[in-house]
Amino acid sequence: MQTQEMIGAHPDVRGGVNQALVDAIDALYSCAQACTSCADACLAEQMVDRLRQCIRFNLDCADVCAATATIATRRTGSNEEIIRKMLDACVTACRLCGEECLRHAEQHEHCRICAESCRHCEAVCQAAARSV
Amino acid sequence: MQTQEMIGAHPDVRGGVNQALVDAIDALYSCAQACTSCADACLAEQMVDRLRQCIRFNLDCADVCAATATIATRRTGSNEEIIRKMLDACVTACRLCGEECLRHAEQHEHCRICAESCRHCEAVCQAAARSV
Amino acid sequence: MQTQEMIGAHPDVRGGVNQALVDAIDALYSCAQACTSCADACLAEQMVDRLRQCIRFNLDCADVCAATATIATRRTGSNEEIIRKMLDACVTACRLCGEECLRHAEQHEHCRICAESCRHCEAVCQAAARSV
Amino acid sequence: MQTQEMIGAHPDVRGGVNQALVDAIDALYSCAQACTSCADACLAEQMVDRLRQCIRFNLDCADVCAATATIATRRTGSNEEIIRKMLDACVTACRLCGEECLRHAEQHEHCRICAESCRHCEAVCQAAARSV
Repeated sequence: MQTQEMIGAHPDVRGGVNQALVDAIDALYSCAQACTSCADACLAEQMVDRLRQCIRFNLDCADVCAATATIATRRTGSNEEIIRKMLDACVTACRLCGEECLRHAEQHEHCRICAESCRHCEAVCQAAARSV
Repeated sequence: MQTQEMIGAHPDVRGGVNQALVDAIDALYSCAQACTSCADACLAEQMVDRLRQCIRFNLDCADVCAATATIATRRTGSNEEIIRKMLDACVTACRLCGEECLRHAEQHEHCRICAESCRHCEAVCQAAARSV
Repeated sequence: MQTQEMIGAHPDVRGGVNQALVDAIDALYSCAQACTSCADACLAEQMVDRLRQCIRFNLDCADVCAATATIATRRTGSNEEIIRKMLDACVTACRLCGEECLRHAEQHEHCRICAESCRHCEAVCQAAARSV
Repeated sequence: MQTQEMIGAHPDVRGGVNQALVDAIDALYSCAQACTSCADACLAEQMVDRLRQCIRFNLDCADVCAATATIATRRTGSNEEIIRKMLDACVTACRLCGEECLRHAEQHEHCRICAESCRHCEAVCQAAARSV
């Protein structure tokens, strides 16, 4: 991802890059990928009936993260109120999804990696929310 | 939209359709369409430089509404906490976008229609947030 | 949906609304809703292991339809080549998803309604692709 | 991005990771970010009226890339026909957007970086389309 370069080249930013927001954007795209992948991997597991809730949290979390990544990228119109609300929704989505994935982390490697991705994304979104 | 039929056919719903949520889903898709369309129409206006903020609010609002429509549709996993947070983000996005569109409503018919769509969506999302 | 009004108010359109494209936009949002809903309803069925492929087609179809609805709405930049390719991808996604849903239509009402929505969307996207 | 790890942990993949597809997924998320960012940076430029077409191509390209990243991630249901069509739409979207950005690359650093991101994404999507 060339997020930092792109944000730095924005006429309203001129070098004053908000690093916490850049870190959040990268984590959000990454978490959207992990959750989408985990939902599909769960769907392929023999015990899919025990992973219904995990699939749902994965899909919700992927949608919230993808929308927030886009909105945080389009940050310069001083639309901080929306960014903060969306980062806050991400913190919740990542917490719930990460907790559910953790329950299946010993049996399923994809749930273990996804839980880590959610936990990381939750932390950087919290930091970014305080920075905008 | 056949939203009501689809939600009503869900095995966890069995007829107990939450009408406020169904109304919100329809309004969210409709508002996403209106905001996407208004952003593009603003971009085609001669005075585009006066519509920058309107375009950004439109794009943000479209993204928040589209993500929330999807998450509210996938409602049955008792993920109410996420739905509420997203509906709350929509209320903010629709309010800000609707106010900005209203400023250009006399000059631009697309801003007038979009402002109405935002106001309606804001109201039904508020009602839906209280219902979940 | 106020699609027709919004497209008609676009400064580059001035009344010359492409009705086939407007019909496609409405059908695309509606099909995205139906497929998202059907995926979640399938996930709630007792025999979820027989519906894995249906859930995947539903999720893919919802993503293709939602992206195409947005791109077709943002139609005025004479980006017809992209719109045509996306409408073409929708025709395929709706055909595959509709066929799979039809296999479960007798057991599951949500699959029956979704199959209809896919078939309708496939037809109007084909007509719209010829019109741009 | 932990794309390779996630795909490698999928029960249907078991180590046989399609590297061309993994590269495409990473490039698609990255290009979606670059195009979203470039559209917003263009909107902030004084000469925004000369960048209308660039903004539209950026927004279309971002939407096609984001949807394709998700669908390619959810790859295991042997839905190759859709993946191929979407990768093909991406090749077109990236080509058109990259060409337009290149026209503004000397004046605007964000257009220069975005043009590179589009060119790279176009190439890896072409390679990935041959691999599925």
